Amino acid sequence: MERKNILSTPIVDAINKYIEENNIPFSMPGHKAGKGFFYTDDGKKLFSNIINGDITEVEGLDNLHKPEGIIKESQELLCKLYGGAKAYYLVNGSTSGILAMIFSTFNEGDKIIVERNCHRSIFNAIILRKLVPIYLKSEIDERFNIPICINEDYILDVINENKDVKGIILTYPNYYGICQNISKIILKAKENNMKVLVDSAHGAHFGFCDSLPQNAVELGADIVVMSAHKTLPSFTQTSFLVANKNIDIENLEFYISAFMTTSPSYMFLCSMDYARNFMELYGKKEFEKCTKLARKYRKIINELSYIHVITPEDLKEKNLGIYIDESRYVINVKKQYSAPLLLKYLKKNNIQCEMCDGINIVLILSPFNNEMDFSKLYEVLKDCPIHEFEIENSLNINDIIEQKIPQSKLLPFEAQKIKDIEIVSVDNCINRVCAENITPYPPGIPILIKGELIDEHALSLIKYYLKSNISILGVDNLKIKVFTKM
Amino acid sequence: MERKNILSTPIVDAINKYIEENNIPFSMPGHKAGKGFFYTDDGKKLFSNIINGDITEVEGLDNLHKPEGIIKESQELLCKLYGGAKAYYLVNGSTSGILAMIFSTFNEGDKIIVERNCHRSIFNAIILRKLVPIYLKSEIDERFNIPICINEDYILDVINENKDVKGIILTYPNYYGICQNISKIILKAKENNMKVLVDSAHGAHFGFCDSLPQNAVELGADIVVMSAHKTLPSFTQTSFLVANKNIDIENLEFYISAFMTTSPSYMFLCSMDYARNFMELYGKKEFEKCTKLARKYRKIINELSYIHVITPEDLKEKNLGIYIDESRYVINVKKQYSAPLLLKYLKKNNIQCEMCDGINIVLILSPFNNEMDFSKLYEVLKDCPIHEFEIENSLNINDIIEQKIPQSKLLPFEAQKIKDIEIVSVDNCINRVCAENITPYPPGIPILIKGELIDEHALSLIKYYLKSNISILGVDNLKIKVFTKM
Repeated sequence: MERKNILSTPIVDAINKYIEENNIPFSMPGHKAGKGFFYTDDGKKLFSNIINGDITEVEGLDNLHKPEGIIKESQELLCKLYGGAKAYYLVNGSTSGILAMIFSTFNEGDKIIVERNCHRSIFNAIILRKLVPIYLKSEIDERFNIPICINEDYILDVINENKDVKGIILTYPNYYGICQNISKIILKAKENNMKVLVDSAHGAHFGFCDSLPQNAVELGADIVVMSAHKTLPSFTQTSFLVANKNIDIENLEFYISAFMTTSPSYMFLCSMDYARNFMELYGKKEFEKCTKLARKYRKIINELSYIHVITPEDLKEKNLGIYIDESRYVINVKKQYSAPLLLKYLKKNNIQCEMCDGINIVLILSPFNNEMDFSKLYEVLKDCPIHEFEIENSLNINDIIEQKIPQSKLLPFEAQKIKDIEIVSVDNCINRVCAENITPYPPGIPILIKGELIDEHALSLIKYYLKSNISILGVDNLKIKVFTKM
Repeated sequence: MERKNILSTPIVDAINKYIEENNIPFSMPGHKAGKGFFYTDDGKKLFSNIINGDITEVEGLDNLHKPEGIIKESQELLCKLYGGAKAYYLVNGSTSGILAMIFSTFNEGDKIIVERNCHRSIFNAIILRKLVPIYLKSEIDERFNIPICINEDYILDVINENKDVKGIILTYPNYYGICQNISKIILKAKENNMKVLVDSAHGAHFGFCDSLPQNAVELGADIVVMSAHKTLPSFTQTSFLVANKNIDIENLEFYISAFMTTSPSYMFLCSMDYARNFMELYGKKEFEKCTKLARKYRKIINELSYIHVITPEDLKEKNLGIYIDESRYVINVKKQYSAPLLLKYLKKNNIQCEMCDGINIVLILSPFNNEMDFSKLYEVLKDCPIHEFEIENSLNINDIIEQKIPQSKLLPFEAQKIKDIEIVSVDNCINRVCAENITPYPPGIPILIKGELIDEHALSLIKYYLKSNISILGVDNLKIKVFTKM
């Protein structure tokens, strides 16, 4: 056999290189480089040789699109674990669950309430299902420059003023692990015959112990989508969908099926089966251990002067009824220092973080991060030559991060149809109508939705993310697409 | 750590059990229990420890939804390999490619021509995109009772009679590996400004050597979707989409992105990168070797009296310009014997086949099936106690398999909206309007589409598949959903 050209498999080569770096994983997926799979004997047996488990739906196995055997049995156990009326494994990530819950709950032309701070997949679903969105803007914590919640009075006002709304889509928690008490909102929405759909992509581990927030299913949401891979020991792109009572199950299942491959990966299904069982048996104990360790090291890390890991106490001060997932670190970098440079330094020292928004660095902790991982994190932070990362902070971040919802010139689905588009530079886009969503990724929250007017505020946000070296979907070579005839 | 209850992970347990059986894989996926990944040194290195490669889109890697680095580079190589204008990796199987190509090519209300023998995902896309389908029925080879092609004169007539049609969706090859020359149809469609979309889920290996059919991209289709996992060394649920010239790339990319998870698996991306490189370097040589071996053993197997593996010569006799993928065995079982019982016997002897339609058994061969695999297959077939599998063949299969398109009472998308449904037994469903697609799986071709009248012919097909113990999506406990008010 010939030796292949080293450059001919760029993805394989990059992943091999990444593996060799042997980083400490404080990022997704939740199994942390496989460690999470070696907790039971059967787990070890399977995952040490997982490629043999990549088989198709042969005799003796089951059909994900019409489960009657092992998948049905496992999904019933999933339902028992989270509560709710029916639960599903998704092999196309939370994206497919979000499409399915939105398509099955709403009809074309329906008016819905949705957080502006929602995930890109929700915006796509709004276009595809031709919905009329009423956006809710977030409260910003000016100390850390992060979105923390939707003001409760404001959201209740919006519900009261829009009785014709068919439902509300909430995100719980957000990417920073911050939650608000959504029970009251759910109750109010239901009083008004509105359905409540929850994107809980970052909350699959919630509700398993007292040191973690309550699970969205428990809080009474109608449909909840949770990424299994983000916080549990399951492969990337696996998710759970849980439907509560009073959902048209047939209709829901049509859309779940339509948006998912008819050739689902049994590697994925195995990992979800494993993760579910892990949470059932060890979830409470292991996440208690994890949050305990997280608190211990948060305290030590917070003795360092140049950063601050956000604490539940910080949030309590706001008196907004918000709290934080303590299995997540949001490291706020003091404003005279560069968070992206700190991120780079951490990576160079083999600390793999989840994301950096330009100001904060987010780490996802898990039961599979042991004390050595935390200790190494602390040591690296302690030894950081932070003076090398000093910056002149020329941006007035508080102004920039503040949520302002741009003026909509076209509904999202109308904008999707129009093809008369031109490409203009970022410097010449002011007062034009945006022809493509502009989304920094991470955190995946659009600044502008297709069809909205590019105003000064939106432009300053774009420039801020560009300056922070964060990749922006919709901005290519400093150019943006706008509609020609508007 | 506690020892978990053996029954608590039904999927993991079943897969562990399956792995222990150590079957010879003549089924998907194309890597054949991992053998396909050990062809290059870097492949060995990565795939022997693939779980470490399950990482998220961290620094140094790339974003599948806005590729600028390794994914972009690899997709460009994919495009170079197949030809065409742009090529994409799909992590949600061919299903997501089919949704994307149909949504991007057609608008709501568009009339399209589509084979009745198309995959379930195409029917779902027709509902979701609200298209008006004109179905084409297949010619059936009465000797083997399999669909072989759409009569060319018939299809050209349909095109001539429906000049307002926006496009045509073809399947090339079908599940049996049978192809017709679609060049003429493509030419005719293009003359009439119709787009040609090809579901080539089973044809990713086509065009790499003279002993295989030409690739659909080469034949001039506008968009082609190919499953990487079916015939190439790539993980289950991975696919390629190739767009030819004159496609609105921006629009296509919106839909590809919308139907795919924003947390794509790098294990999947690695396997597609690997498979592409494998085909580039070794595809020709290895598939020549594979088809040569397949021919050799087909000849020997065809000396057995109770079965017949379909040959290119068989198809030539029909004078329809059809041919067969020689890396696939379609074992036609003589009518006095039971194909399902033969399938069971093969499985018991560790021969894993791809599917059985009740009459034929399909095997997917690959370069990773060595001579020992073929030899074992032959030995097991030779030693078969076929007299034990004798049946009274009471069904007139020729009548049953013949394609008749039921009367449509509601367009697919209209039927999807109606909720007044009742459940009736299979024996009481005649002349009712079907409220759910009825699809035997495999081969995944609907007998009835939601909104169609259940006539005698459709009913006989349902009973035939039930009798053959083939799982039918849409039939539950011998019951079918029909619309109440029709």
